[in-house]
Amino acid sequence: MRQSKLFTKTRREAPADEVAKNAKLLVRAGYIHKEMAGVYSYLPLGLRTLNKIVEIIREEMNAIGGQELLLSSLQNPELWKKTDRWEQDVWFKTSLNSGGELGFGWTQEEAITHIASQYVSSYRDLPFSAYQVQTKFRNEERAKSGIMRGREFLMKDMYSFHADEQDLDAFYERVTNAYRKIFQRIGIGEKTFVTFASGGAFSKYSHEFQTICKTGEDVIYVSRKKGIAINKEVLTDEVLADLGLSRGDLEEASAVEVGNIFKLGTRFSESLGLSYLDKKGNAHPVIMGCYGIGPSRIIGTVIEVFSDEKGLVWPESIAPFTVHIVSLGKAGDGISKIADTLYSDFIKAGVEVLYDDRDVRAGEKFAESDLLGIPKQIVIGKETTATGTFEVVDRATGSVVKKLRDNLLKSDFNSTT
Amino acid sequence: MRQSKLFTKTRREAPADEVAKNAKLLVRAGYIHKEMAGVYSYLPLGLRTLNKIVEIIREEMNAIGGQELLLSSLQNPELWKKTDRWEQDVWFKTSLNSGGELGFGWTQEEAITHIASQYVSSYRDLPFSAYQVQTKFRNEERAKSGIMRGREFLMKDMYSFHADEQDLDAFYERVTNAYRKIFQRIGIGEKTFVTFASGGAFSKYSHEFQTICKTGEDVIYVSRKKGIAINKEVLTDEVLADLGLSRGDLEEASAVEVGNIFKLGTRFSESLGLSYLDKKGNAHPVIMGCYGIGPSRIIGTVIEVFSDEKGLVWPESIAPFTVHIVSLGKAGDGISKIADTLYSDFIKAGVEVLYDDRDVRAGEKFAESDLLGIPKQIVIGKETTATGTFEVVDRATGSVVKKLRDNLLKSDFNSTT
Repeated sequence: MRQSKLFTKTRREAPADEVAKNAKLLVRAGYIHKEMAGVYSYLPLGLRTLNKIVEIIREEMNAIGGQELLLSSLQNPELWKKTDRWEQDVWFKTSLNSGGELGFGWTQEEAITHIASQYVSSYRDLPFSAYQVQTKFRNEERAKSGIMRGREFLMKDMYSFHADEQDLDAFYERVTNAYRKIFQRIGIGEKTFVTFASGGAFSKYSHEFQTICKTGEDVIYVSRKKGIAINKEVLTDEVLADLGLSRGDLEEASAVEVGNIFKLGTRFSESLGLSYLDKKGNAHPVIMGCYGIGPSRIIGTVIEVFSDEKGLVWPESIAPFTVHIVSLGKAGDGISKIADTLYSDFIKAGVEVLYDDRDVRAGEKFAESDLLGIPKQIVIGKETTATGTFEVVDRATGSVVKKLRDNLLKSDFNSTT
Repeated sequence: MRQSKLFTKTRREAPADEVAKNAKLLVRAGYIHKEMAGVYSYLPLGLRTLNKIVEIIREEMNAIGGQELLLSSLQNPELWKKTDRWEQDVWFKTSLNSGGELGFGWTQEEAITHIASQYVSSYRDLPFSAYQVQTKFRNEERAKSGIMRGREFLMKDMYSFHADEQDLDAFYERVTNAYRKIFQRIGIGEKTFVTFASGGAFSKYSHEFQTICKTGEDVIYVSRKKGIAINKEVLTDEVLADLGLSRGDLEEASAVEVGNIFKLGTRFSESLGLSYLDKKGNAHPVIMGCYGIGPSRIIGTVIEVFSDEKGLVWPESIAPFTVHIVSLGKAGDGISKIADTLYSDFIKAGVEVLYDDRDVRAGEKFAESDLLGIPKQIVIGKETTATGTFEVVDRATGSVVKKLRDNLLKSDFNSTT
């Protein structure tokens, strides 16, 4: 895309009331717009990154057999009264003036369990899993972490349905591995740990995926040797014994919860009448699991982890564009002509490229390019017309390589996508 | 996808309280689930069709330079008070118990105009257009038309920003053509007419895209000669004179509004302070247009127009799958082996295929296949093992062609996608 056509622009200042680094940088770079506390709109660059994260998640959910659907946001109070969750503070509910009280979904166990009850009758109908990528609404009071904790945010929520615990356990393991792949592909795999957290009536533990990050709201204890962690909230001698760990093995760290998985057991199927008949014709409640991951929170986490004093730094797999062509020419001059041609060659080659074709000072262009955080910056200036070389700057490391045009086009810029 | 894995099933009966044909068929075929009056969830098959429509719309919006973004649903009352639209009945608002009154977006002129005001200062920043595909919420009282008029529904809304009327007019024309392409690609192009409807302070007319359909809520008067129509609400002698038509040229028809485009002029830019400086440094309010299209309403319309007594009939471009393999074999027999191989060959060839591999009576399979409405049904039975021929049934016409395997694979099943 030509930057001269992009309607957003970078800014020197973030909104005065914004305290979180992630939102400050995203607003300054024109990726998001702050509507209200905890409510953000995604502008073109931000939406591109959000969609890339969603697409990675979708691929991994499809790979383990997840069936995508899209549930309604509007929730029927009758279902939630059956599970005793209608009276929670987290709800945004419609005002009675709007003609009867309805809820806006903040999670969807009730709705999906009710739908499953329409289709499941026999053990032959199990197992299956269904997921969606949907906007959730939560009446959060502490909405001070930028896009990390919003009142409105995107979430991938998956639910699985099984005849017995063994089958749930096997699927739970598959989801764990799928989540590991997702965080690897997004570039935060090495900093993200499966973390033991509080369970429920059905299961001793749930599992969070926590990414180590200085500004994280959670505290976890990491065993690097075992590649797992324990949430501070559940760190007891009993837990250590369960996991075969001693306190000496553990390292304290601040972290952000980027995903969580939970064995629900029969908590919802019993309340909502989701049961199946076994081979002998006996009825049993269906055993369920649920699996959440927050694409918008992942964006915030990636920024908190990788950004630097110059601005955003995107892993290639989720960058809005792979290459940023920074032309130092003016419309019609030799430099511009080279830049124009390179831009159309990249487009033809399927490389995702943003092209700074604006008539702006070089220093400003460099600063803006650093703020935007696109992984590879290709600078085209007088040296290019003189020697035929292009300067390729790696945004993350700052390293500079000079390349001739043919080598440039042979570079595998979309290697990780 | 193997039908044995699909968690939804077809049903003989639609919900008793459902009156609209479109929703009855979609529920019976397992495409959607009715949560409440005017609130539907999209199950895997329904979501596939919805996504195909969205993707067609997205391609055509990108082709005319639309920049995709995603605005928040939660709306700040302050913006809407400035345009005097906060007190309308259409709103779902949060209850005061949820901590202050917020709105759930039913359209987004206010939000996008406010965002544009952050980025536009000079004539150099114009023109541009931005669009989103987003769930909208409307407190509709008459929610009796199935997915045609929901309280929650998906909408593509685009907004454009211009320095002068001439530029708006030119872009408005480009959107009109893009919409025509969209409806052509979806398969309702020939039944859809640009329809003159009431305008506003800025423009004498707005334009609706109305699809002729017996169950439509609107009445339009079509001039087939000119390829346009007039909404009954504005049919006056003055309008006829404007369009160079006489009553004798017109044919009355019921129709569904599947899209609409509107010149907003300065209605929102003046109220919300969106202005630009011209070359001489004089300030002017920005001239705007808005362009809506409803993917879920399109699904309903397509069903009302094309479905028959046996069930759904999808145009190939928006069908959840292109081919439905109906195997009459049992697991492990010769018929099943042929079906398995054909299924994997189709997958390899990139054909979107649903494979009925279930152990169910032939008559039931045929009836379910007709209800699902996938464009091509390939029947594999004893005749296939005996003669090597496959029966290819066209769902829309019922015509049957027998093909040998090699010819089958050479068929261009994805021709329109």
